[in-house]
Amino acid sequence: MSDGTIRVGVIGATGYAGMELIRLLLGHPSMRLTYLAGSHARSAPFAELFPHMAHVAGTPVVAYHPEECQTACDLVFVALPSGQSGHIAADLWARGLRVIDLSGDLRLPSDLYRLWYDKEPVDEAAQRNAVYGLTEFAEEELKEASLVANPGCYATAVLLALKPLQDAPFVGMGGPIIADAKSGVTGAGRSPKTNLQFAELTDDFYAYRVGKHQHIPEVERALSDKFRLLLTTQMLPINRGIFASLYIPLGEVVSREEIYRRYVNCYENAAFVHVLSGEQVPHIKSVQGSNHCHIGLIVDERNRMLQVFSALDNLQKGAAGQALQNANVMCGVDQSAGLGAISTWI
Amino acid sequence: MSDGTIRVGVIGATGYAGMELIRLLLGHPSMRLTYLAGSHARSAPFAELFPHMAHVAGTPVVAYHPEECQTACDLVFVALPSGQSGHIAADLWARGLRVIDLSGDLRLPSDLYRLWYDKEPVDEAAQRNAVYGLTEFAEEELKEASLVANPGCYATAVLLALKPLQDAPFVGMGGPIIADAKSGVTGAGRSPKTNLQFAELTDDFYAYRVGKHQHIPEVERALSDKFRLLLTTQMLPINRGIFASLYIPLGEVVSREEIYRRYVNCYENAAFVHVLSGEQVPHIKSVQGSNHCHIGLIVDERNRMLQVFSALDNLQKGAAGQALQNANVMCGVDQSAGLGAISTWI
Amino acid sequence: MSDGTIRVGVIGATGYAGMELIRLLLGHPSMRLTYLAGSHARSAPFAELFPHMAHVAGTPVVAYHPEECQTACDLVFVALPSGQSGHIAADLWARGLRVIDLSGDLRLPSDLYRLWYDKEPVDEAAQRNAVYGLTEFAEEELKEASLVANPGCYATAVLLALKPLQDAPFVGMGGPIIADAKSGVTGAGRSPKTNLQFAELTDDFYAYRVGKHQHIPEVERALSDKFRLLLTTQMLPINRGIFASLYIPLGEVVSREEIYRRYVNCYENAAFVHVLSGEQVPHIKSVQGSNHCHIGLIVDERNRMLQVFSALDNLQKGAAGQALQNANVMCGVDQSAGLGAISTWI
Amino acid sequence: MSDGTIRVGVIGATGYAGMELIRLLLGHPSMRLTYLAGSHARSAPFAELFPHMAHVAGTPVVAYHPEECQTACDLVFVALPSGQSGHIAADLWARGLRVIDLSGDLRLPSDLYRLWYDKEPVDEAAQRNAVYGLTEFAEEELKEASLVANPGCYATAVLLALKPLQDAPFVGMGGPIIADAKSGVTGAGRSPKTNLQFAELTDDFYAYRVGKHQHIPEVERALSDKFRLLLTTQMLPINRGIFASLYIPLGEVVSREEIYRRYVNCYENAAFVHVLSGEQVPHIKSVQGSNHCHIGLIVDERNRMLQVFSALDNLQKGAAGQALQNANVMCGVDQSAGLGAISTWI
Repeated sequence: MSDGTIRVGVIGATGYAGMELIRLLLGHPSMRLTYLAGSHARSAPFAELFPHMAHVAGTPVVAYHPEECQTACDLVFVALPSGQSGHIAADLWARGLRVIDLSGDLRLPSDLYRLWYDKEPVDEAAQRNAVYGLTEFAEEELKEASLVANPGCYATAVLLALKPLQDAPFVGMGGPIIADAKSGVTGAGRSPKTNLQFAELTDDFYAYRVGKHQHIPEVERALSDKFRLLLTTQMLPINRGIFASLYIPLGEVVSREEIYRRYVNCYENAAFVHVLSGEQVPHIKSVQGSNHCHIGLIVDERNRMLQVFSALDNLQKGAAGQALQNANVMCGVDQSAGLGAISTWI
Repeated sequence: MSDGTIRVGVIGATGYAGMELIRLLLGHPSMRLTYLAGSHARSAPFAELFPHMAHVAGTPVVAYHPEECQTACDLVFVALPSGQSGHIAADLWARGLRVIDLSGDLRLPSDLYRLWYDKEPVDEAAQRNAVYGLTEFAEEELKEASLVANPGCYATAVLLALKPLQDAPFVGMGGPIIADAKSGVTGAGRSPKTNLQFAELTDDFYAYRVGKHQHIPEVERALSDKFRLLLTTQMLPINRGIFASLYIPLGEVVSREEIYRRYVNCYENAAFVHVLSGEQVPHIKSVQGSNHCHIGLIVDERNRMLQVFSALDNLQKGAAGQALQNANVMCGVDQSAGLGAISTWI
Repeated sequence: MSDGTIRVGVIGATGYAGMELIRLLLGHPSMRLTYLAGSHARSAPFAELFPHMAHVAGTPVVAYHPEECQTACDLVFVALPSGQSGHIAADLWARGLRVIDLSGDLRLPSDLYRLWYDKEPVDEAAQRNAVYGLTEFAEEELKEASLVANPGCYATAVLLALKPLQDAPFVGMGGPIIADAKSGVTGAGRSPKTNLQFAELTDDFYAYRVGKHQHIPEVERALSDKFRLLLTTQMLPINRGIFASLYIPLGEVVSREEIYRRYVNCYENAAFVHVLSGEQVPHIKSVQGSNHCHIGLIVDERNRMLQVFSALDNLQKGAAGQALQNANVMCGVDQSAGLGAISTWI
Repeated sequence: MSDGTIRVGVIGATGYAGMELIRLLLGHPSMRLTYLAGSHARSAPFAELFPHMAHVAGTPVVAYHPEECQTACDLVFVALPSGQSGHIAADLWARGLRVIDLSGDLRLPSDLYRLWYDKEPVDEAAQRNAVYGLTEFAEEELKEASLVANPGCYATAVLLALKPLQDAPFVGMGGPIIADAKSGVTGAGRSPKTNLQFAELTDDFYAYRVGKHQHIPEVERALSDKFRLLLTTQMLPINRGIFASLYIPLGEVVSREEIYRRYVNCYENAAFVHVLSGEQVPHIKSVQGSNHCHIGLIVDERNRMLQVFSALDNLQKGAAGQALQNANVMCGVDQSAGLGAISTWI
């Protein structure tokens, strides 16, 4: 817009990531929501769909229409299910918009996508041109990017815990790195299913898709295939938050202090990644509702193992928050704009 | 301060209302936290006490000292337990500071305080001078106020539901107004007690202090004793939120539409009170983490009864949020400053 | 069966009430599960559908077939949605089986059913012959009954609180009796819906179907239309439990002690109804997972109002538990057989 | 007693394990509660302390007195905090009673106890004579035992998952076995603490005592020190349940089927351990409120790793349930007596 305001659209506005994007964008100093589309072919007033934002004069949610979207927006977030999201993202990108796709569709090359998603890949050109938006490690590319593949929630939690170790000489290569990860239920999406009902999930905890989760190749690739990853994904009976417990074999003796310095150096300019000192471990509560990721480090000398714990909010740093952080970098505005929320703790 | 920034202190910084005040004040455009004191005689670094704000370079929490507080602050929030809070508030006010007391100590005249709190009243001059800070109905007085008695959480939920009816000709006088109210557990404070443990409260619901709650006289007085109130206070196994279901006998036939217009007129300039249209009822979720209050109206013609439902966050509009809203009015800044958060819904 | 064992079927075996019935029947000393049918046209092994009973060699759940059911059973529980359940119940009863219908289909005469359910009534002969199974007040009729309309969950909570007052001279007739009731989410059934998802319900509280709930006429009728009832039904973010707060105007002065004696007399032979002494109020926790109902009594002299609080488990005394209690009476076995569970509290 | 009834006492009756024992014993066919003592020096009526058992005519809870206990009981459960429990257990055992100690005091030899508990060991003779009561692997010893050290909750979950592998040739010795374990909050006891309050725990998840948990040596010892264990203990925001995710390096190629058969053989006579077939993983929900343990097995061929998942209720198989199971074996009654409860699932 002539006044410098960036006109923004959200496709998938009534899903959990979409709703979070809207909430964040309503507080953004230089972006303005101009287009909201749902996945269903009906239009509905803003206040009816979002009772918690009923005091806002928001734009209605309409059935998606490419030309209308193209006209209304400078930048678009696409937050639809995998298999659907990437196609729309690729199309809007081809129409000249800047696009951030929150699904898994543009994160993997075709062969890996076919293998782990069991679906036909989206447009290969789009996939090749999409920047993998783990913000802290992609800032330079993001400044030039017009298409971004936003990382997965588990992938972000695991990668922020492992990236500082990518070239560490002390990581043992005897076995895989184990990531025992737990996620709140919003990670499973908003479509109604019996196993996602309140009465079924409350008080429960279980593992799912063991050894088969599509974030495994995403992580290995983002670490340049330096490590093999064993990822266990588990359901936590809370709404928001991922807690990843990582077990990293140490090939040689190394002090907790040396490892701590490596992490602090890696993240010294990162506004949203906080490395805990001493033997502190993170709490999911500390990051719920915020874009922060907390990382704790413990060396188990008895077993020559490094334990890294990372916690983030799956809808913020694990999805909508990181997507907005990426959009900020793409648009040359302050990376933290619209992302100032602090967890309520209680 | 010379740059127009207001220097603010919080006494009771580690309680739930105090923590919420700190979180809100960290995002305030023209207030700056300069003094934090706890109720215990020890000092502790900010990041250790508040892991969710560990990335903030906050001022340490110290043992309370009147002179230090006086020197460091222009305005102080006192959020200690009743019986303790009012004394400190009165003393700081006498020292010339602007003070907002979040406890019940300054809300009632001595005789009622003695009766309902079963404690010796605080300084009577302070009580007489304290403005009762139900913001929407006290703006003019607040502009001149130097001492504010911040309303109780249940009282705020009930009063925002009843104030538009204070002079309504159609309210029947045959019986009391019944308020069946439910509150999240943070209303009970942070001191550890067996009955507030996770394992005891989760999955439970019960009534407590039936007929004896100290917010009863607070509400009746704020309504100029026009109505008698029967208030039932009940424990909801959630962290934040009050939901009040009110039953108001109708003395004459009146349409839902007429009542709705009365409420909309009453709150047309209120940034934080939202009257729902149609037969919508509020959700606690819609207001959690925000300073908003949602009100729903239903007329039961069969029983000639008006049902009013109000929902708010007990730590925001029911405590810290309203306190900050009052401070904004006292300081002549935008009433909504620092209070822009929207509920996360999920 | 020749050994005196009663052969029992459950239609609607995969719903919440059906699952609870199965669990209870597995521990029954003289009943044996011989037939399980779901509402869908497929058959599935017991252990696959019920992982918490995987160690039990249970009978498979099959698509419902009237003749098979008739052959396999002496007594059948039908726990399907209203509009479907009563038809099957009436048919099985006509085939000579003893039947307990847990839906609302057989509880009301045709005119009221049409009005409050907005559906065509089921077989009128069946409805007229069905005994309304509020066990404590229907034992004699139940001994002879072959068809039972099992009471609704809210209705049971309200009726157990009000039945002792049915002929009390001191109840004021100036206005309706108000029942502000709250229910756990299993009351809404097991069919997947967005608003019943974990992420939507957790931390929320709201009212629904205000003034329109079909248990209103059910209660009024079971009290011989002595009182008018204003019932507010509200959603509690827990799995099991109803808590009803009742407000009963007193026409004359009466002591708490006199009222207490009236309740104790009424329930002196009731194994599952417990009247709390002093000013105790019930906890939902006290009855979760058990067939008990706890009742607390408080007189508000200031407002000349009696407050009665009742708590029960909506799946036990509010559905499956009471259904089994009724079956026990019908079959002449100990009323408490299979119903000995005590709430876990934690 | 002359009629064969076993007179049973519970010391620590108002803690979570004590309350669960009482609840279980009230339903036991041949045991009778004759003595209840709390840890505090006051006496209180049964119904006042246990509102969920208010309908039971229970014996009052008294201040502990050794002679009174000795006179009243044949068998005693001691469920007090470590450091206190073992002393009382040893004393009652010396007085000739059969005793089951639920604390950690009698599980480890002195040197390990000193190291991991950082306390002075209890009576060494008692410790040497105490049978470690992992029931499924100690039946013969339990039949003769007069003193039992009841296993820890985490230890039971990990041991039931690992015991079938104790002599398996295919377990790799290259690194430790990793147990990433999660427990509901009742494992932390009932003494009020700020970090155990509802408002602090709800929605949270975190690791605690990493690398320092006293169940580590307990497990290693019960596996004859065949394996080294890395145990991470983590807090789940639910009341009951442990879910342990174990990672076991495979030294050679072995099929899922072969491993499954090994587990099924191991537990073919175990009433309470259920090995899931196929690639099923357990749910905490499946075992909540019951004495069952569910075990799931997955082979990750990509990383040559066996994943074992075990789930149990920390207050049942992890504490009171296993204690009663042990008491049954000691007394020669059916191992399952009083332990027939099935999880409610919802």
